[in-house]
This record gives sequence, structure tokens and C-alpha cells, in this order.
Amino acid sequence: MSLFPTAPDKHALEEGTVLTPRFDANGLVTVVATEADSGAVLMVAHMNAEALKRSIETGEAWYWSRSRQELWHKGATSGQIQTIVEMRVDCDQDALWIRVKVAGDGGCCHTGRCSCFYRAQPLRGEAGKPLIICE
Amino acid sequence: MSLFPTAPDKHALEEGTVLTPRFDANGLVTVVATEADSGAVLMVAHMNAEALKRSIETGEAWYWSRSRQELWHKGATSGQIQTIVEMRVDCDQDALWIRVKVAGDGGCCHTGRCSCFYRAQPLRGEAGKPLIICE
Repeated sequence: MSLFPTAPDKHALEEGTVLTPRFDANGLVTVVATEADSGAVLMVAHMNAEALKRSIETGEAWYWSRSRQELWHKGATSGQIQTIVEMRVDCDQDALWIRVKVAGDGGCCHTGRCSCFYRAQPLRGEAGKPLIICE
Repeated sequence: MSLFPTAPDKHALEEGTVLTPRFDANGLVTVVATEADSGAVLMVAHMNAEALKRSIETGEAWYWSRSRQELWHKGATSGQIQTIVEMRVDCDQDALWIRVKVAGDGGCCHTGRCSCFYRAQPLRGEAGKPLIICE
């Protein structure tokens, strides 16, 4: 049994007021988590239908861990629980954006940084600037 | 010939100062584009190696269109060119975050909205609130 309905057509998918997530071949949607106040992108991860259902019901971020192939209540062991302030879905409903407040030490990345996006890539051939490590 | 090097090990992947993108089975990385000032998530899309190379070299966002199966210079026809203010890569280098300024009418979504994420999903069983359409 499906946990979510499927949009009957493109118009319903794009303009409908019912969540009709389009899971990929692996049963996943892409999720972007940003810090609710600063707007910093913390991580990009995935939810399957069960993780999405639990996230909506509890207001805390549940993901599907592709590496461990299991449901992942973010922060359950680290204390870095993500409370969802707002959840949005994109036009074709294969991606979600969640704005979160992070509990515990406020971290997110398994490397210890507060965001997984701790490195910047120079653009337009800016000379001599390597990929910069930042917190 | 590869356009980008491959990290020799996990430490180099996570801590290295050289961009070593991990393209998926379809040759793509996930890209999150946010508005440089407001932090709003505008879209989630994909780049292949060529699109990533062009984005880095020109400082304008190039994507790979999965639906059209072609390189996509965002804004080439609509005028909604995305100038990249900053590009970041995540810990395991399979996702990029670009902060962009949008030219033309400032739009992004093919539905005409400024962001693809124009609908919010109620959480924690908040009663009677449907998926909200917003700009």
C-alpha cells in the first residue's frame, strides 16, 4: 500500500494542494536541509515514503540512509535532532526543502562541521585559490 | 578523458582541497541553487561533468537537463541567467550548493514562480491546513 497518493496528471502534480511525491527508481526523493534562520544549506539527503511520513507526523527529520540501507532518525545517537520549521515541495514533487533547527551541539556533518558544505570552489579561473576549507 | 580527478581515498574526498566530484551512475551530481541574498532555495537540479566545467569556467549555472537529455545553460532563452556568487561542495562530493543572482525577471521555475518550492506541507497533523500555494 502506498503511503502517499500519485498525481493523476502534470497539472495536479504542479498545481495541486495534495502532496504527491514522485519517488525515484530507488523509492527516494531528494531532501535539502537548510538552517531555519541563517539559510545555510546543511546537507542534501534522501527520504523514502516511510521517512517522509515520519518526518511529517513528528516534525523531526527522518531520512533513508543509502549507505546503511536503513531508516535514519537524524540525531538519534548524536543528539543533532533536526526539528522541521517548514517543509516545502518543488514543482514536480521529486525534491523537498526543509528548514530546520538543529539540537545538541548544532552540528550536522559526520566530519564534525555544522554543514556538509564546508568547501568552496573558485570560479572563473580565479588564480591561485585552492578549494578553501571553512567551517 | 575525465574532466575532473577522482579522490584516491575517503580522506582525500572529505578533506582534500581539490574538487573530485563523485558523479552517480548517470554521470550526474545534485545541485542546490539558492538565492545569494535571501537564502531561498530556488531549485534542485543536476550537472554532468561538462555542465560543471562550464559553470566553474564561466561563473554562470549550466545544468544537465534529465528530461531533454542535453546541456542546459539556465536562462539562455528566458533571460533568467544564474550568476554564481559562490559554489560549495559537500563532504562526499556528490552534491553542490551554488548561491546565485538571477538575471531577467528574477524567476527560476518553469511554472513562472521565482522558486520551484512554492508549496508548503503542514507538519505534525496541524488540522485543516492544506498544502499552501505561495509565491
